[in-house]
Amino acid sequence: MYYQTISQCTQMLKNLENWLDKAEEYAGAKTFDIGVLMTGRLAPDMKPFVYQVQSACDYVKAAAWLSGQVPPKHQDNEQTIDEVRARIQKTVAFAESVTEAQYAGAAQQKVSLSWAPGKALGGEDYLLQMTIPNVYFHIAMAYAILRHNGVDIGKMDFLGPINWIDA
Amino acid sequence: MYYQTISQCTQMLKNLENWLDKAEEYAGAKTFDIGVLMTGRLAPDMKPFVYQVQSACDYVKAAAWLSGQVPPKHQDNEQTIDEVRARIQKTVAFAESVTEAQYAGAAQQKVSLSWAPGKALGGEDYLLQMTIPNVYFHIAMAYAILRHNGVDIGKMDFLGPINWIDA
Repeated sequence: MYYQTISQCTQMLKNLENWLDKAEEYAGAKTFDIGVLMTGRLAPDMKPFVYQVQSACDYVKAAAWLSGQVPPKHQDNEQTIDEVRARIQKTVAFAESVTEAQYAGAAQQKVSLSWAPGKALGGEDYLLQMTIPNVYFHIAMAYAILRHNGVDIGKMDFLGPINWIDA
Repeated sequence: MYYQTISQCTQMLKNLENWLDKAEEYAGAKTFDIGVLMTGRLAPDMKPFVYQVQSACDYVKAAAWLSGQVPPKHQDNEQTIDEVRARIQKTVAFAESVTEAQYAGAAQQKVSLSWAPGKALGGEDYLLQMTIPNVYFHIAMAYAILRHNGVDIGKMDFLGPINWIDA
């Protein structure tokens, strides 16, 4: 389920992009600069909204190591809401370019992380202990920053589309 | 990977239990009642800390539907930090009582939710679109409430144990 799990992480980035529309509406209605939300944070020693988005994007694209692909490098230079949207869109476009078949050998991959020199993770641990927790952590922190500041988003915006069937 | 994914969600509850120790230390050092954090919230129309823990626990135990088990009912009556710890512990104990073999038919399960009458989800969608996003959402909101209030926890506390191997 590597491909399916990563596809769901990619869907979470699309959900996040929708929250940006609501953030923009809110800033318009309250007549404040949307840039205030881009630099918003939950605690003085926590990272701001733009960083949370960049980091969520990085953990989604880094899942491509599991497919044997080299993820594209993206500079962390976003400041405006349009730049944040573009970062999400190029990450989603890359993630969606990796096919299910390319993840066939994911369990046999060994993935290194730049911030843990000399260490690596097996494919399954990388997915379960690194990709999922980090993607959801940063997306949830982005959500929390917007929500704490009054943006009108709720749990169903967090979850996004759900493949319901009849009971 | 149903069992492995749900085991990682269970591990996240154990991580959360560790944050409670740090919250208690912080309350002791600052000489405030730990109960203040139990009712803390990120926005007036968001749920408080205790609810976030209850809800994370509920989505972990509800994953047992995928194994064909009926999850135990737990009353949402926790108020104190010790009651919150007990809620986590009984949820972890139940989740860990379900074996890997019991998840063999998970993909063929059809799971209903009390808040979505008439609807259901197939096993894979239930895991990817309901269990994972909700468990991580509520655990991340619990983290955010503590962090926003100054508790000394960081990303590595969120991630918990990682199965590193040599690079």
